[in-house]
Amino acid sequence: MDTELLYQRVAAHYRRAIDTGVLAPGDRLPSVRTLMQSHQVSLSTAVQACRRLEEEGLVEARPRSGYFVLRPRRPVLAPIAEPEVLRTPDPAQYVGIHDRVSAFIAKCESQGSGANFALAAPPAEFLPVEPLKQAMMRALRRHPEMLCSRVPPQGHPALRTVLARRALEFGVQARADDVIVTHGCIEALNLALRAVAQPGDVIAVESPTYFGLLQVLESLGMRALEIPTRAQHGLSVDALELALQAYPDIRAVVSIPNHHNPLGCVMPDAEKARLVALCEQRGVPLIEDDTYGALGDHGAPTALKAWDRTGNVIYCASMHKTLAPGMRLGWMLGGRWRRRIDMLKYAQSRPNEPLGQVAAADVMSSKSFDRHLARLRTRLRAQREEMADAIARYFPPGTRLNTPTGGMLLWVELPAGTSGTAVFERALRDGVRVAPGAIFSNSDRYEHFLRVSFGEACTPATIRALRLLADAVEAEVPRTARAAA
Amino acid sequence: MDTELLYQRVAAHYRRAIDTGVLAPGDRLPSVRTLMQSHQVSLSTAVQACRRLEEEGLVEARPRSGYFVLRPRRPVLAPIAEPEVLRTPDPAQYVGIHDRVSAFIAKCESQGSGANFALAAPPAEFLPVEPLKQAMMRALRRHPEMLCSRVPPQGHPALRTVLARRALEFGVQARADDVIVTHGCIEALNLALRAVAQPGDVIAVESPTYFGLLQVLESLGMRALEIPTRAQHGLSVDALELALQAYPDIRAVVSIPNHHNPLGCVMPDAEKARLVALCEQRGVPLIEDDTYGALGDHGAPTALKAWDRTGNVIYCASMHKTLAPGMRLGWMLGGRWRRRIDMLKYAQSRPNEPLGQVAAADVMSSKSFDRHLARLRTRLRAQREEMADAIARYFPPGTRLNTPTGGMLLWVELPAGTSGTAVFERALRDGVRVAPGAIFSNSDRYEHFLRVSFGEACTPATIRALRLLADAVEAEVPRTARAAA
Repeated sequence: MDTELLYQRVAAHYRRAIDTGVLAPGDRLPSVRTLMQSHQVSLSTAVQACRRLEEEGLVEARPRSGYFVLRPRRPVLAPIAEPEVLRTPDPAQYVGIHDRVSAFIAKCESQGSGANFALAAPPAEFLPVEPLKQAMMRALRRHPEMLCSRVPPQGHPALRTVLARRALEFGVQARADDVIVTHGCIEALNLALRAVAQPGDVIAVESPTYFGLLQVLESLGMRALEIPTRAQHGLSVDALELALQAYPDIRAVVSIPNHHNPLGCVMPDAEKARLVALCEQRGVPLIEDDTYGALGDHGAPTALKAWDRTGNVIYCASMHKTLAPGMRLGWMLGGRWRRRIDMLKYAQSRPNEPLGQVAAADVMSSKSFDRHLARLRTRLRAQREEMADAIARYFPPGTRLNTPTGGMLLWVELPAGTSGTAVFERALRDGVRVAPGAIFSNSDRYEHFLRVSFGEACTPATIRALRLLADAVEAEVPRTARAAA
Repeated sequence: MDTELLYQRVAAHYRRAIDTGVLAPGDRLPSVRTLMQSHQVSLSTAVQACRRLEEEGLVEARPRSGYFVLRPRRPVLAPIAEPEVLRTPDPAQYVGIHDRVSAFIAKCESQGSGANFALAAPPAEFLPVEPLKQAMMRALRRHPEMLCSRVPPQGHPALRTVLARRALEFGVQARADDVIVTHGCIEALNLALRAVAQPGDVIAVESPTYFGLLQVLESLGMRALEIPTRAQHGLSVDALELALQAYPDIRAVVSIPNHHNPLGCVMPDAEKARLVALCEQRGVPLIEDDTYGALGDHGAPTALKAWDRTGNVIYCASMHKTLAPGMRLGWMLGGRWRRRIDMLKYAQSRPNEPLGQVAAADVMSSKSFDRHLARLRTRLRAQREEMADAIARYFPPGTRLNTPTGGMLLWVELPAGTSGTAVFERALRDGVRVAPGAIFSNSDRYEHFLRVSFGEACTPATIRALRLLADAVEAEVPRTARAAA
């Protein structure tokens, strides 16, 4: 018997054992010595079989311990195609993004139950609901008059203090006085844009970007200029530099540097530093949306604001993803527009109500909140791995995916020509919600994408729903793409 | 002894008793028979003495019960001078109202305690704090997951149902689906204005009007056209008609028809009907701010919206004045701009958080809320009478005042040439806060006015504070006015 066939046969034996679950993730492969004995093969054949399984991503070698079965990650997906960053961007008027977005939202709402891969929020059981509830009841018992009182226009001092302290975690030095508490990050983005720009102004945004941002721009009558953004490294600073030359009337830049929505990626620190410096040098305000930053696998990546020396960066963030989406709390650091933002906040909605702020400050200043954050990150990471594996396993050939290192979003490129919008509609009929790529741009560039949130607790039902989604994709893959695959 | 002197002597006797508090408001005068005996006078003299006291406003006759001591209401103040309604208004650019307003707010905030006649909110003890607290604790116990959930973009269905039902009280037929819950009336006004107008547009407003509205307009880059408004009857529809002829580019009209801020007055129904018809006929959207409507002495006066047949009226209101100012709840009916307002609300701040809405719906749908409203109206009315009396008694001659029939605001005209801003500054040093007239217009037309809220519980300390305020006014009356008085 030929050696090559022999090691392949041994490898196939264990591949089957792994495939059928006889050997589960974390189990140890028999030792090389045992393999030699069981299969009557030489040392080099046994080692070759193990290495083959390792190359296939089925097992990993651990020094001085042997080979261990990995979580199944069968077909490794190709990464998302990167954009051509040096083309001249075309300024897209905000025509109709609202209709796309509101149709999407209305349809998702009409589907009251079932899996929701469209919602970018962790499930209640991952969040500190009980401590928050207790903090609220405590506040209500001790200070019921809070229901009739007002806090300073910028927010409750206790919460502002906690937020300033937490900003240290992502490299930002801020005083409590600098913090403005808002109704979610969305109000912060509104205020930031209104502070620095007027209706009709051109705002540079990433492409793709959060549909909520596109909608804010449309609602304010501002025009988006979509800047090429790399699936792996975020906003292309080179492309932005070109755009600033080509369009000297760009009034502001909005970036989501950390665990981008929808891309999931983090900008490298060197690029962040370049971006901050470029905007400063050109006198263009830089608005940072750091909604997902706190959800990095190993803590929050550094914010753009950390490089800001002149107040040119307006930092916006949310407490929906780590505290409680139903409390609608966000916050911002206004940089040198701080006074104008104070005025706009007061004129737009007055200070936020005290109760939620007091309870949030209470919970977020506790030690157990750090433990909660660590646990949340671990759980989201585990879900991400399971979901990415399931997508790799069930989605049709030609699907592409980059697995991020945090956040709660997977940006999935479907086989060429597949309509994400048609997939969305089809999956919805099966009770499965997902965000179609088309809402993340004013162009049709991302029609063959889906944004799949891995916020939902990953149960067998979730995986079943993902298979339904995969079936919907399968059904929408055009014949041409099928033939090519 | 001459009869005339005799009845005067008897009257003087009881006048002294009333002045010194021996006879308190509500006490009964001795009967005519007793007077005859005590003072050894004839029936006609005794009756004449009583009538004299009645003429002086010290007692009132109650059929078959006798004469009763009234609350003191010594010098009756002249009503506020009415504006010349047929002059051509001048469009005031919103230059600097924010600075006036924010200086006012910052100064009021720096004064943490002491009487606050600047704040237009009832004290906590007048509001259903305990039922609200209980409703919140109930909601938290039963549905803590609410902290992580979202409601539909227009608000929680339970609250929208209650609000639609309550709208019947002021003559408005609305379905729950028409209601949009907002962050206070201020967000509702922002959304209404953004729905119908653009930056640079001219908006007709009352003169004087709520400083918050002027600030919203400034922050949105819109220009105010101040329309003469009568202290007794509100917006002059004649003046508005002239203005619509002179300025065909007026894009919207904003009116506070019920218990106007700061005037306190209610537009007569016939004028309301004319206003709605005029705006409809000219195709100019009419935005109604009904913040104080629910606080009429005898219930809520009819809203402008009640006359609206075509959706041309956008109704905005608040729950701060009757429920709890610290909950920051407001609401609106968008008329034919409903869909655009939905979009703007979603893009600006997303739906309000569920907890407050659920608790508000719970409290506002209870029978006891109607009892609370009735009690609140009675208490505010009693305070208004006490405050108006105290102003009449302590403010210098030349002070003018109309006493409204609801709301919680007194608009006080100071002797000619007195600077309300100087009074504000001086009173602040004595720990007393009040709203200077200057913030209610972009012009200087109301510099000699103060807005005095009677929301605060009227204690002896309140009356002492009002005397300090009177002293501050006294100190600022110019010598010329003093000589004239």
